[in-house]
Amino acid sequence: MSIRRLGEFGLIERFRKAIKTDPSVIKGSGDDCAVMRFDKKHYMLFTCDMLIEGIDFTSKEDPFLVGRKAIAVSISDIASCCGLPRYCTVSMALPRRSKVLTADKLFKGMYDICRQYGINLVGGDLSRADKLIIDVSMLGFVEKNRLCLRSKAKKGDVIFVTGEFGGSIKGKHLRFIPRVDEARFLSERFKVNSMIDISDGLTQDLSHILKASSVGALIYEDLIPASKEARDLTDVLSSGEDFELLFTVSLKDAKKILKRHIVNFKPIGQIMEKKYGLRLIDKSGREKVLRENGYRHF
Amino acid sequence: MSIRRLGEFGLIERFRKAIKTDPSVIKGSGDDCAVMRFDKKHYMLFTCDMLIEGIDFTSKEDPFLVGRKAIAVSISDIASCCGLPRYCTVSMALPRRSKVLTADKLFKGMYDICRQYGINLVGGDLSRADKLIIDVSMLGFVEKNRLCLRSKAKKGDVIFVTGEFGGSIKGKHLRFIPRVDEARFLSERFKVNSMIDISDGLTQDLSHILKASSVGALIYEDLIPASKEARDLTDVLSSGEDFELLFTVSLKDAKKILKRHIVNFKPIGQIMEKKYGLRLIDKSGREKVLRENGYRHF
Repeated sequence: MSIRRLGEFGLIERFRKAIKTDPSVIKGSGDDCAVMRFDKKHYMLFTCDMLIEGIDFTSKEDPFLVGRKAIAVSISDIASCCGLPRYCTVSMALPRRSKVLTADKLFKGMYDICRQYGINLVGGDLSRADKLIIDVSMLGFVEKNRLCLRSKAKKGDVIFVTGEFGGSIKGKHLRFIPRVDEARFLSERFKVNSMIDISDGLTQDLSHILKASSVGALIYEDLIPASKEARDLTDVLSSGEDFELLFTVSLKDAKKILKRHIVNFKPIGQIMEKKYGLRLIDKSGREKVLRENGYRHF
Repeated sequence: MSIRRLGEFGLIERFRKAIKTDPSVIKGSGDDCAVMRFDKKHYMLFTCDMLIEGIDFTSKEDPFLVGRKAIAVSISDIASCCGLPRYCTVSMALPRRSKVLTADKLFKGMYDICRQYGINLVGGDLSRADKLIIDVSMLGFVEKNRLCLRSKAKKGDVIFVTGEFGGSIKGKHLRFIPRVDEARFLSERFKVNSMIDISDGLTQDLSHILKASSVGALIYEDLIPASKEARDLTDVLSSGEDFELLFTVSLKDAKKILKRHIVNFKPIGQIMEKKYGLRLIDKSGREKVLRENGYRHF
């Protein structure tokens, strides 16, 4: 059987099922970060993201922004668990023909955002490939009582998002702001039941929460903030790489967020029973069943 | 200027000089692992290694052994710092045409050696590329008083190695045993002044110690254990991927090691003053100046 037939998530699920970990691992693969014991008050977060020329960026992109993105996607994963990023390593493969100027710009893009977020770039590996490849591994820390995963969404929770959706390919995917501040703000004041960052598309990533939490959801087209760059509803729901946060809180906390007029967080729907599946009320009031149709590698 | 002209180590040096880290980082890039504060008694070790089809293995190799190697090279880095490996993540890009069977074998190769060494495989990222790429990030821990770096070799130290050198391409590079047990044995009983694993070739990796420690060295052809697979002296000194340990201890500790007939460790020479450079006494008793001519990507 080819991996195309099994699919990206099928293959990941196949591996995940086989893996056993020791009790120091609070959460292994299957969330935005792995979570490990650290000290009395904190967990350690560990994540990795690989960017490949022709998939995650084109050869025409500014290398500074490509380097920036390579780090930013991992920061976004740490943010999704409400953590603070702290250390990273970078494995990079460059084409033989590359210029030192290009390498310098890539490095500057990485290093600038590392400094901005207080991340120590502590090591790396350099190799050669036909196309540029950057893989970043990042460690972060989160207070035990502020850790947020995909698996604790509850029926009745209100679903919120940060920012806008769709059309990220036109530039946002290279310039997005990882939502560390927003996640830290939330987890200090509210009980965030579940959270994920939107990398594969709103529908697909929301589905990850629904699956991990064994719940369903209803979202409203009218409420989803669409980017000016978005082509249509499919683009808003499925194009991915928005790198915004999607999270759920109890109705009580939702009311507090709305009352305080915290403009960074917009409600888009609510968590339902599992059997409800995932549905959308469109602008004309019709209910549609949504399918997971975000980005897939195979 | 092209990166070929600046070279792999020139480019790494260029990046390294620009990087600043906070006081929690004991050692940033420039050793086998990054070293960070962890708790009262331990440091945390962090390393990454990228393997690329056509460079680190061919498409004809058994995927089980390729997966095994991807993990083993990072274990070897942790061993070089006298640490114990504990957690890892794997970023992998597969060609679209890959079979599930191949993916399964890759995974089994990784997972088997992880279990053997007590490593938790806690996460990963899956992508697509024309050639198979595997990047592993690993975390380990070491007691503060047992940490070993490249930078503390002292004039008069005896240079030891584990195992045999040369001809690794004929199979050892896929089947080598990461020297964790040896490193832990040593660091429990002796003061290991410096240590490195031989990935780029004996001469080149010894040179890394000499540079980091500001010393020179004299080694003896007669004393260097050559593998049966080794073609000639150049192969023994420069072909790389032996993944053996090279370390230096004081003359006093060296005598203890030799007196106890610990067969795993063979003396091959001694640390000299910096101005001496790196020299070899060949089988006919002639002294040669050695140049760094191990593996380079560019």
